[in-house]
Amino acid sequence: MFSLEIESDKLKEALEAAEVLVDECKLNFTPEGFTIRAVDPANVAMVTLELQREAFINYEASEGEIGVDLKKLLDLLAMSRKDDVVNLQLDETGHKLLIHIGDLSYTTSLLDPSTVRKEPKIPKLELPSQIILPGSVLVRAIKAADKVGSYLWMKVDNNLAAFILEAEGDTDHVQLTLSKDELITLQSETDARSLFSIEYLLDIGKTLGKANEVRINLANDHPVKIQFTIADGCGEVSYLIAPRVESD
Amino acid sequence: MFSLEIESDKLKEALEAAEVLVDECKLNFTPEGFTIRAVDPANVAMVTLELQREAFINYEASEGEIGVDLKKLLDLLAMSRKDDVVNLQLDETGHKLLIHIGDLSYTTSLLDPSTVRKEPKIPKLELPSQIILPGSVLVRAIKAADKVGSYLWMKVDNNLAAFILEAEGDTDHVQLTLSKDELITLQSETDARSLFSIEYLLDIGKTLGKANEVRINLANDHPVKIQFTIADGCGEVSYLIAPRVESD
Amino acid sequence: MFSLEIESDKLKEALEAAEVLVDECKLNFTPEGFTIRAVDPANVAMVTLELQREAFINYEASEGEIGVDLKKLLDLLAMSRKDDVVNLQLDETGHKLLIHIGDLSYTTSLLDPSTVRKEPKIPKLELPSQIILPGSVLVRAIKAADKVGSYLWMKVDNNLAAFILEAEGDTDHVQLTLSKDELITLQSETDARSLFSIEYLLDIGKTLGKANEVRINLANDHPVKIQFTIADGCGEVSYLIAPRVESD
Repeated sequence: MFSLEIESDKLKEALEAAEVLVDECKLNFTPEGFTIRAVDPANVAMVTLELQREAFINYEASEGEIGVDLKKLLDLLAMSRKDDVVNLQLDETGHKLLIHIGDLSYTTSLLDPSTVRKEPKIPKLELPSQIILPGSVLVRAIKAADKVGSYLWMKVDNNLAAFILEAEGDTDHVQLTLSKDELITLQSETDARSLFSIEYLLDIGKTLGKANEVRINLANDHPVKIQFTIADGCGEVSYLIAPRVESD
Repeated sequence: MFSLEIESDKLKEALEAAEVLVDECKLNFTPEGFTIRAVDPANVAMVTLELQREAFINYEASEGEIGVDLKKLLDLLAMSRKDDVVNLQLDETGHKLLIHIGDLSYTTSLLDPSTVRKEPKIPKLELPSQIILPGSVLVRAIKAADKVGSYLWMKVDNNLAAFILEAEGDTDHVQLTLSKDELITLQSETDARSLFSIEYLLDIGKTLGKANEVRINLANDHPVKIQFTIADGCGEVSYLIAPRVESD
Repeated sequence: MFSLEIESDKLKEALEAAEVLVDECKLNFTPEGFTIRAVDPANVAMVTLELQREAFINYEASEGEIGVDLKKLLDLLAMSRKDDVVNLQLDETGHKLLIHIGDLSYTTSLLDPSTVRKEPKIPKLELPSQIILPGSVLVRAIKAADKVGSYLWMKVDNNLAAFILEAEGDTDHVQLTLSKDELITLQSETDARSLFSIEYLLDIGKTLGKANEVRINLANDHPVKIQFTIADGCGEVSYLIAPRVESD
C-alpha cells in the first residue's frame, strides 16, 4: 500500500504533533501524502495534520489507512540520529510495518484501524480575528500563565490594537500584551475573547515552540485554531481547542 | 512605597541567598536599598542580606517592609531570561506586587508582614580567626564531606598555618588541608575549631559557589560566619551557622 | 602492600567495568598490576579485568588482595575532576585505604576479603566465531533490541558473511545486519547463534560504548565473550555472558 523514505526528524515532528493529544491514531494515505485527524480522550482538543509527498525523499502510496500506536512508533524512531533517513513500508499482509533506520530493521504490528477511535468531524467555524506570531512567544505566555492559574484568556483588544494573553489565579494574575508591531500579523474587525485550559496549551506548546510563524484564529467564546507548517512548508498542523465557557 | 528596576539575575541571586534557608521573609526597604534578615525553622542558620541602591538600574523607595513568598517570587522570576530587566512596584493598596519582565506583567499577592516569622536579633560574636577563599573550594570540601558523614569540622591550625575541613563517618574520614598559600587570606592568632551540620552547609553552598571570595570567621565551639558579596559588589550576604557542641 | 598514582579517569573506567556487575569485589595486586574477577549475583555474567603497571604514573605493589565496596569507592572518586591524579595506598594496618585527590584526603575502610564472594573459575570455552566492531555499534543494537524484547540473538551467518543482532517481542521484531565490510573483523568457519539477556547487555553497554574496538567471540548456544582494552591499551576488560538455552 505504501513505501516511504523521509528524513527521520520530519517524520518525528509530524507524529509528535499528534502524539501530544492522542496515543493512537489512523494515518490516511493518498498518492499526495498522508493525513491524521484525531481528538483527545476528553474531546477538548483536535489535531488535523497533513504531510505532503514533497516532504518525502521517496513517496509511493495508494489510498488506504493504517492504525498506529504513536508512542511505540516514536520510541522506535528515537533510535534514529540527526540526518538519518528512515524507510517505512507495509509488509505483504498489510498488518505489519517495516521500518528501516540505516542498518536497523524493525517490524512492528499495526493496530486494526477499526479499533482506533473514530476520526472527528471538523466543525465549520467563523473565527474572524487572526494573529500571527512566533511560536516561542506563544509558548512563553503559556508557561507564564501556568505559574499562576489553570486557564488562559486569549483576547484581541481592537482599541489597543493588541493581542492579550491573560491568566488569573487565586492570588496572582499575569498578562502578556502584544501590540500590533510586536506581532507578525493582527487582523481583527472586532474584539474577541475566549478562555482555554492551560493544560492543553502546554501539551500543544511542546510542538509549536519551534515554528517561526503560528497562526491563531479567535472569536468570542469560541474554539481557537492554532496552525503552523512543518517539514519546511511541506506539511501543516492545525489544532482546534474548545473554549471554557463561563456559566452565569 | 517603592519602584525598582534591576537586572533579573541580580535580583534572583539575592532572593536565592535567603531562599536556601527560609520560604518566606520580609524585605525591608529604605531609600538606600533593601535588606533581609531571617532564620531557618530549626534556628540553626541565619541569613542577613543587603542589596544597595547602586545594584539597581532605577531605585525609589521610602521606609517600609513587605512580606514575600520567596519560592513563588523566584518561580515567577524564572520566566526572565539572561539580561532581562525586571521592574517591581507596589500597587496602590500596598498589598500586591506588580512585576514586569519585558512584555509580561504579573500581579502577585504579598504576605501580611505580621504573619511572617519575626526577624532574628543578630548576636554579637567574637570570631577572631578569618579565612578568605574561593567559594568553589569551600563547596568542594562540603560535597566531599557529605560523602562521608553528617558533620564538618572547620579548623584553623596555627602551627601548620592551615585551614582544615574534616569529616568523620562510621567507617570513613575525609580531610581537606588548605595551607596559607592556597588561601586568599588566613589570619588567626590562635587555633580554632567548631563543628557544623553538613546539611546546612550544602544549602548555603548552592549560593556561594559562584563567589570569588568567601570570608569565613571562626572561633572555638562558636558559630561560623560566612560572607560574600553579590551584585558586582553592590550587595552582601552573610550567613551565621550555629555549631554542634559535643557534650562530654 | 601498595602505593599507586594514576589518572583518576583511568581508575574509574576500570572500576566501573566491574561495578556494572557487582557491588563488591577483590582487587588482586601483583608487582605487574592488579586484576579483578567477579560474577554477578545471578551467575549470568562474569567480568575479568586487568590494569597493568604501565597504566599508572607510579605503581608499587607486592602480592596481595583487598576487598572493596565498588560503589562507595567510585562515589569518592567522583570528587575528582578531569585530569586529576589520584593516589591510593594502604594504611599501616592494611585495613584502610588512603585516597588522595589533590588536596582531598580520604580514609575508607576496606572489606575483609574473606567476606567477599569467592572469585569464579574461568571456564575453558571454544568460541570459534570472532567479530570485531566499534563499541558504539554494539551498544546501539542493544538499545534498539531493548525497545522490542528481553533477549537478543547474536548470530553469524556465513552465507551472508554477516553478523546479525536480532530481538523478538510479542508484536515487534528488530534486526541489525552488519556485513563483513561494516565490521572491523569477521572470522567464522561456521554459522553461530546464541541468545542473551538484554538486561545484562545493557549493563555492560555502559562501559563498552567508548571502546573503538570490541571483540566478540561466539558459538552455538554457548556463552559470548566480549572484550576491549582500557587505559590506552594498558588494561583489558573481558565479559562472559551465559546464553539462554531454549528448551524444547
